[in-house]
Amino acid sequence: MSGHPLWTFAHALRKGFGRQDAAEIAPSLHDDIEWAIFGPIDMFPYLGARQGKEAATAAIRQIVGNFRLHKFKQEDVVLGEGSASALLRCSFNAAENGRPISVRIATFMRFREDKLTSLRAVIDTFDLVEQALGRPIDLPVTA
Amino acid sequence: MSGHPLWTFAHALRKGFGRQDAAEIAPSLHDDIEWAIFGPIDMFPYLGARQGKEAATAAIRQIVGNFRLHKFKQEDVVLGEGSASALLRCSFNAAENGRPISVRIATFMRFREDKLTSLRAVIDTFDLVEQALGRPIDLPVTA
Repeated sequence: MSGHPLWTFAHALRKGFGRQDAAEIAPSLHDDIEWAIFGPIDMFPYLGARQGKEAATAAIRQIVGNFRLHKFKQEDVVLGEGSASALLRCSFNAAENGRPISVRIATFMRFREDKLTSLRAVIDTFDLVEQALGRPIDLPVTA
Repeated sequence: MSGHPLWTFAHALRKGFGRQDAAEIAPSLHDDIEWAIFGPIDMFPYLGARQGKEAATAAIRQIVGNFRLHKFKQEDVVLGEGSASALLRCSFNAAENGRPISVRIATFMRFREDKLTSLRAVIDTFDLVEQALGRPIDLPVTA
């Protein structure tokens, strides 16, 4: 499946992050895209759900502005007919303070007419928050 | 793909949680399974990586002992050849205090000879921790 729309989107994503320009990514989004990256929106306002290309592009613009991607590894990829999922290991630097952040992101995508119509992403957000804070959060042992 | 090994594993998983018995799940695991549920192991010692069927079954035994599953929804499934991924929405009650916990879990699985050889799961762990604690964690806004 070398022509799978996942590769078009992945290519646009890399280019967009490389140039810190959401306009590189926007053409691969469907007008009616449903976009959701689950996570604590109080700390990261660009996470959460967005409806439609304009809103998704605005969120992407904030993400590429806040993080410099410097490594991107596909740990697992499953391709379906018009759908795909990928387990990604991404290393960023926070633009604000240069702090290195490395997280696993699980993405589930659907495509129509070669464009992304749905993206849902799950992140190990506790790890993300601790790295963004630069310190561990004290937790009780529950078991 | 009605004969996909994912369905055998999913069936065993439901049965194992229903009866709180890891022995229902163990037969669907390959002897050399690589198992990893990413999350804060200080708080949830049964998360993390396990090598081999015995270690994975021991972790599953702790999980089914600590959580009563009462709802399980497949929000997305992608089936590959000998692989699969599923985005699950699971509602549990913590066995310790009955506290309701509802989380999204993204799973990536590989199968050999109809048995699970690899599972990697990503959870929105910040949400999980807050629900398990029963209170929000204060966070600064970073952007």
